[in-house]
Amino acid sequence: MKVSILCVGTELLFGQTVNTNATYISQQLQLLGFDVLYHSVVGDNPKRLKNLINRSFEDCQLIITTGGLGPTEDDLTKEVICETFGDKLVCDKDGLIAMKEYFAKAKYKMTDNNLKQALIPSKGIPLKNTVGTAPGFILESDSKDKIIIALPGPPGEMKTMFENEVIPYLSDKIKGALYYKIIRTYGIGESILETVLMPIIHNQTDPTIATYAKSGECSLRITSKRETLEKSKAAVEETMKKVRNLIGTYIFSENDEDLAEVVIYKLLKERKTIVSAESCTGGMFAAALTDVQGASQVFKRGYVTYSNESKIDDLGVNPENIDNYSVISEEIALEMAEKAMQKSGADLGISVTGIAGPEDVDGKKSGLIYVALTFDDKMRKPQILKLETGRKDRDKNRNYAVMAMLDLVNKNI
Amino acid sequence: MKVSILCVGTELLFGQTVNTNATYISQQLQLLGFDVLYHSVVGDNPKRLKNLINRSFEDCQLIITTGGLGPTEDDLTKEVICETFGDKLVCDKDGLIAMKEYFAKAKYKMTDNNLKQALIPSKGIPLKNTVGTAPGFILESDSKDKIIIALPGPPGEMKTMFENEVIPYLSDKIKGALYYKIIRTYGIGESILETVLMPIIHNQTDPTIATYAKSGECSLRITSKRETLEKSKAAVEETMKKVRNLIGTYIFSENDEDLAEVVIYKLLKERKTIVSAESCTGGMFAAALTDVQGASQVFKRGYVTYSNESKIDDLGVNPENIDNYSVISEEIALEMAEKAMQKSGADLGISVTGIAGPEDVDGKKSGLIYVALTFDDKMRKPQILKLETGRKDRDKNRNYAVMAMLDLVNKNI
Repeated sequence: MKVSILCVGTELLFGQTVNTNATYISQQLQLLGFDVLYHSVVGDNPKRLKNLINRSFEDCQLIITTGGLGPTEDDLTKEVICETFGDKLVCDKDGLIAMKEYFAKAKYKMTDNNLKQALIPSKGIPLKNTVGTAPGFILESDSKDKIIIALPGPPGEMKTMFENEVIPYLSDKIKGALYYKIIRTYGIGESILETVLMPIIHNQTDPTIATYAKSGECSLRITSKRETLEKSKAAVEETMKKVRNLIGTYIFSENDEDLAEVVIYKLLKERKTIVSAESCTGGMFAAALTDVQGASQVFKRGYVTYSNESKIDDLGVNPENIDNYSVISEEIALEMAEKAMQKSGADLGISVTGIAGPEDVDGKKSGLIYVALTFDDKMRKPQILKLETGRKDRDKNRNYAVMAMLDLVNKNI
Repeated sequence: MKVSILCVGTELLFGQTVNTNATYISQQLQLLGFDVLYHSVVGDNPKRLKNLINRSFEDCQLIITTGGLGPTEDDLTKEVICETFGDKLVCDKDGLIAMKEYFAKAKYKMTDNNLKQALIPSKGIPLKNTVGTAPGFILESDSKDKIIIALPGPPGEMKTMFENEVIPYLSDKIKGALYYKIIRTYGIGESILETVLMPIIHNQTDPTIATYAKSGECSLRITSKRETLEKSKAAVEETMKKVRNLIGTYIFSENDEDLAEVVIYKLLKERKTIVSAESCTGGMFAAALTDVQGASQVFKRGYVTYSNESKIDDLGVNPENIDNYSVISEEIALEMAEKAMQKSGADLGISVTGIAGPEDVDGKKSGLIYVALTFDDKMRKPQILKLETGRKDRDKNRNYAVMAMLDLVNKNI
């Protein structure tokens, strides 16, 4: 089935927002075996939107729209779709009830224009919005050769609706059974990954392997579509074996978990606790761990020791060592982790000290970062990493450090 | 002048790459005062590309393409553009020389298909590629009412070419000058914001006002295009005054700064330091502050006191108070902030304790969160917030708490 993705939003045309919705939907449709022919973006202009819908149907059977379902006057997607299909808007009663509950819970006042959000085409199949207010819908032409799926614009709402409601709907339209696995890797770049996997990628059409790079890591998706789910699963597992042989050391999850989840689950399993002492990442490592439900059993406390004084006061770092070695050094990283561990009684101590950037400091380059990991078990030698990102980008340096810290813990539990 | 941005690339339709080119070009055109009506993405398919070009010219005078200028067989953008304009491809001699130099420098071998990259339409104005191989070009129809600008796909090459060659070309075409301001607000939802601003939004076509919701906050963009920059600026300022009258209390920035930046700049200005003691946000508040360059002067340390023990050990919270009031209480929030402030010698202390979710804990609901702000200045009464988000979403609860903390600090410096 050929698909056109149509995103409605002036903020996209103004360049205020990057169109990640089109990317996400494309990825998902690709997985399901649909062919995406176009992405289009249009503002809140009914004439242009109507033209685009009609033109998309010239060579596509399915249009997925995002955006324009909001409460305000310029949100016109639904009206235009109705016009195109010769339908009219009616109130989606379940949607209205859900919306009222949503507003009551959040203690927001519901305004009259919110009521507009509960309207969907009379022939439409409503799609529940569990994380926001505007319901989406699926509208099929009588002969079912033209389908529009209308989704909200905020990425969180759109994705949840896509996963919970759209995938099951679309799966029914596919012949055969689809199965896929998402593998996540750290420490190998996308182009090298692709080169290493080339023999597998090139010699087979099913399963397919796709690679995706995202901040500091790389994901692989292995997808198979065969007559039955068992056959698809078996084919994916067969390819997984080959992938493990080639890049096994870089894989941290075979189930699409993020690195912080993997670390928390391992700590829970091993009944180990960890304490953090962060300088340049300023709490990001602690925030990443505590983002995982259940973290409180293994992560009891963390120190954001941004200044030298706090490293001395809160951790007990020796001020002479700071003078002798400089605060951005292997020695201080090690002392921070060691002292935090002793002070808290945790089984593991992790620390980071470095230059987030963009400026160099005292002749040390932006992106020079030290990470240390210590163990309560005296038999185990502390681990130290020296990172030199060569970057001036503060965000990237901080993210890079957090990924390196998580990876170090993951490989040493 | 109305513009259509047309990006050629199968990798975009597969969802392997996010279309940052369209975003970048939109931002630049917006600044120059052009109206972007469409973004489109199409694969390497000559028929669809030709259709899109013809259709774009129905309501746009300018098309900017990216991608499809590469050396391989499926790179067809130039051929299709020539066909549309009735032109033919010829060798751009300067482009070829530059390309040969590029390959010599990079010590790459130049292959025969690279020669294809030096071809441009005979009537085209060549655009130099100083960071890659493929030159771009500008092609105008004889009556100059249709213009195509063809740029390479790799973002680095495209941006350099845009800045060096396209902006000077387009600047000559502009009538009038564009000016806009982005205002950011907290504490008011998008639909209420729009209802309040309705009288201004409805009664004017220039300046225009657009609202955008993003995690926990709302932005407003006020845009004017008049004959001169001064007139545009004056018009925006005039509208700003009306906006301030209606929603002034919710505005935290009139210059598109985020709330953490505003807080850091205020603290720097007032020469005040702050310390944080976080439970449920697990370091996110500290991470948000330290994301701002210069934070180290006002934020010296933070405590991630996730467990009761750490609240007692690291901050000195009285264990009896935890027993008496429960750890999720106004009293403990207050004690955390007060003790962190005393211990660190900071001028302000901020704390948070609550239930991030998704589970309720000890009969307390997910999303129940207390925030306290204390002042070293004894004349000032501590501030306490009780949040009840009613949500089970861990991410949203944590983000909500951080925004509430930043807002509380912002309003009390």
